[in-house]
Amino acid sequence: MEGMQKAVKWYPPSYDIRVEHVPIPKVQHPDDVIVKVQLAGLCGSDLHIYRGHEDVDAELICGHEFVGTVVEMGGSFGSHAQQRPELYRTLRLGDKVVSPFTVSCGECHFCRVGFTCRCMHSVLFGIPALPGGQAQYVRVPKAGGTLFKVESVTAASKDGSVSCLADSSLLLLADILPTGVFAALQVLQHAKTSPMLTASPYPFGGFDRILTLAIVGLGPVGVCAAVSLLDMLSGIQQTKDVQYRVVAIDPNESRRAKMTKIAEAIGASRKSFAVADIPQAKRTVSEWTSGIGCNAILEVVGNNSALELAYGLVRPFGSVSSVGVHQEPPLPFMGRDLYNKNISFDFGRCPVRAMLPIASKILAKYQAVFGSIGEKISLIERVVSLEDAPKSYELFDKGKCGKILFDPWK
Amino acid sequence: MEGMQKAVKWYPPSYDIRVEHVPIPKVQHPDDVIVKVQLAGLCGSDLHIYRGHEDVDAELICGHEFVGTVVEMGGSFGSHAQQRPELYRTLRLGDKVVSPFTVSCGECHFCRVGFTCRCMHSVLFGIPALPGGQAQYVRVPKAGGTLFKVESVTAASKDGSVSCLADSSLLLLADILPTGVFAALQVLQHAKTSPMLTASPYPFGGFDRILTLAIVGLGPVGVCAAVSLLDMLSGIQQTKDVQYRVVAIDPNESRRAKMTKIAEAIGASRKSFAVADIPQAKRTVSEWTSGIGCNAILEVVGNNSALELAYGLVRPFGSVSSVGVHQEPPLPFMGRDLYNKNISFDFGRCPVRAMLPIASKILAKYQAVFGSIGEKISLIERVVSLEDAPKSYELFDKGKCGKILFDPWK
Ligand SMILES: NC(=O)c1ccc[n+]([C@@H]2O[C@H](COP(=O)([O-])OP(=O)(O)OC[C@H]3O[C@@H](n4cnc5c(N)ncnc54)[C@H](O)[C@@H]3O)[C@@H](O)[C@H]2O)c1
Ligand SMILES: NC(=O)c1ccc[n+]([C@@H]2O[C@H](COP(=O)([O-])OP(=O)(O)OC[C@H]3O[C@@H](n4cnc5c(N)ncnc54)[C@H](O)[C@@H]3O)[C@@H](O)[C@H]2O)c1
Ligand SMILES: [Zn+2]
Ligand SMILES: [Zn+2]
Ligand SMILES: [Zn+2]
Ligand SMILES: [Zn+2]
Repeated sequence: MEGMQKAVKWYPPSYDIRVEHVPIPKVQHPDDVIVKVQLAGLCGSDLHIYRGHEDVDAELICGHEFVGTVVEMGGSFGSHAQQRPELYRTLRLGDKVVSPFTVSCGECHFCRVGFTCRCMHSVLFGIPALPGGQAQYVRVPKAGGTLFKVESVTAASKDGSVSCLADSSLLLLADILPTGVFAALQVLQHAKTSPMLTASPYPFGGFDRILTLAIVGLGPVGVCAAVSLLDMLSGIQQTKDVQYRVVAIDPNESRRAKMTKIAEAIGASRKSFAVADIPQAKRTVSEWTSGIGCNAILEVVGNNSALELAYGLVRPFGSVSSVGVHQEPPLPFMGRDLYNKNISFDFGRCPVRAMLPIASKILAKYQAVFGSIGEKISLIERVVSLEDAPKSYELFDKGKCGKILFDPWK
Repeated sequence: MEGMQKAVKWYPPSYDIRVEHVPIPKVQHPDDVIVKVQLAGLCGSDLHIYRGHEDVDAELICGHEFVGTVVEMGGSFGSHAQQRPELYRTLRLGDKVVSPFTVSCGECHFCRVGFTCRCMHSVLFGIPALPGGQAQYVRVPKAGGTLFKVESVTAASKDGSVSCLADSSLLLLADILPTGVFAALQVLQHAKTSPMLTASPYPFGGFDRILTLAIVGLGPVGVCAAVSLLDMLSGIQQTKDVQYRVVAIDPNESRRAKMTKIAEAIGASRKSFAVADIPQAKRTVSEWTSGIGCNAILEVVGNNSALELAYGLVRPFGSVSSVGVHQEPPLPFMGRDLYNKNISFDFGRCPVRAMLPIASKILAKYQAVFGSIGEKISLIERVVSLEDAPKSYELFDKGKCGKILFDPWK
């Protein structure tokens, strides 16, 4: 069928996934690029729409995670594109690219300061207004700001250990690895934590010598947060005289088992990294800190029980970095609770585009650990064809499988 | 009456203030000091107990703000006190001291890192467990950690402009000025603000060149926050190429009028500092920032309407420093609201003891502006005797007077 492609579509109100033939997208604006999708991810965040929790009342093409190659570029691309984000000048047909899960222009106020997920032109892939990546082709708006060239990933690995990155692992750059990096960075950059890392006291006086942290939630994003955090902490430890201890928490046993395997594979020491269920975690934190609580918490779940656990585990003057996608219920805290604990929160969406330079270095280092398909330690369980989408959504929704990728050409 | 003193007492359940003769406090622990009170403050925070909002069911001696002289010291004080906070060695009978509104030992984990208001031995003055400062004498526990010697304030003013500090202005160091400093510092040190001040991008990319801030609430604490913030910002501006704009907001006209006078007196420029009611403030922020909102907000009120205003005024990826004392109602936000705006919060009590070195420098600079009794621009309206306490509480509660100090020897 000339001009047509296969795509995974969702129909309202919920749980209705169909694989259909739809028109191949075209350049609609000079800043657009058309990407031929090599792999697309199925992600926990897709389930919000799948289950009908997002108040969407129109059908849509699913998916916000994809990696592929450039097959068409709008008129903005070329040597004339001075004063614009670099890719407008340097992107070429055939380049391999990965896209953040939201569009970011690279030119507005928010993009320039690195808050790319709040770009003035932000649109999420996989909503009625912007067809998603679970298709053979996808249109990327503001593509010179949005896209990330994969060669910059391999170039980042200067030690030669990584000559190329598996497509399956690249997929992690669209969302979950940068989000893990962001969760970790928010904790380490917080004014209540950073004094210890920079060895500058807050505001004078001393500073903690042992940083105690907890990660709440060990889904794919939580695991990425753990790997990122451990990588950053061990980097800091090489230059500064600080110690750290991290407890990674999930009530789900299989999630804990995967975290444990990955932690072993990246060489985390048992003394500084523990994996625990909720009751164990409370005991561990209490023992480690003589009852004071953690310096900071990474909340990677997205519900009130996780926020309450975070509140319970953090010490007075601690901080909570929350990347979980929270819904409608009011926060489970009274103003008094927050005042009484001098607590800090950082909420929100990951600015993926801004995190990609850091995230891709972490990927280059650990892709063999969590980016190969079907390995016991990998975050990715298998690659299937688009035709398998209805079944895959169902299994994934029921927690009966891990992360699944679609190969739209299979 | 031998061994007796006058003190202001509160009786449950509410609105019952009496002036009585009670025993002069004695040293109960070697770390105690007895302070002869020269001036004690009546503060907005006293009203929480006065109104019966704090669930206190026993009578108490009121007041958490006092300045005075040392008249008795426990056995811990003296040249033998090595390895302990300096004052255990250096404090002398007759020294003039000011006390933070809570006890802090100076030795526990929290004190050492500067989070002194969450000291493991923290007790608030003016509760049943610790008699307050609206009396002729007051017992200060853990006094070598808690107290601050006033000579260190005048010593801080090296330029000779301040040879001595009025007792009335010193009283501001017990609570409201350090709390203002803390509110300002939390905003300027936040990882989402500081990149602009240090000219280091977050996490790469550019950074804002114009910092737009709002102060919500212009009671005595809000005014102190405004003065502290303007002082810090103009300091930063002298070394870094940044600009700032601050809007200070209160629905109460007389509060705005006082703020305007103080701003003029400290030389704030009309271009960078505006005083506004709530509707004006919304327009001003929108004009200044082309609708984006403020980088950060100082919340100095302590109710949900102020938190909602802060949320409405702040831009995505902005932060809110909240020093208002919040009560029981749940926070007025859904998780989704916070996620959608990538908002950060820092809540809680001021670590006064840790802020005193900064706060006393600011006091030395501006005491003539806001620390002299009864001046139109001063934060302090008048000094009365303890006998006037019942009447003063009543007027203050009804908003019919400004800040009142008690002279217990009058
Ligand atoms: N901020 C962002 O930009 C961004 C990006 C991607 C995903 N997300 C969100 O991050 C969250 C995690 O994503 P995921 O794909 O890993 O989700 P997931 O559902 O696969 O994993 C969540 C894990 O949390 C565990 N959990 C549930 N309640 C818990 C509790 N009280 N304490 C500890 N663990 C608990 C579950 O057992 C599960 O293993 C989701 O809310 C997702 O929507 C946010
Ligand atoms: N964090 C701390 O350690 C600490 C220390 C001292 C005081 N406090 C608290 O700080 C707060 C301020 O103290 P204060 O003595 O200045 O109080 P105050 O009551 O004198 O002043 C509060 C001001 O806020 C204004 N206001 C009310 N609602 C508002 C709104 N929606 N928007 C803008 N302004 C609004 C009022 O008109 C008033 O002028 C109180 O909650 C107090 O308990 C906290
Ligand atoms: Zn995703
Ligand atoms: Zn943008
Ligand atoms: Zn006070
Ligand atoms: Zn202490």
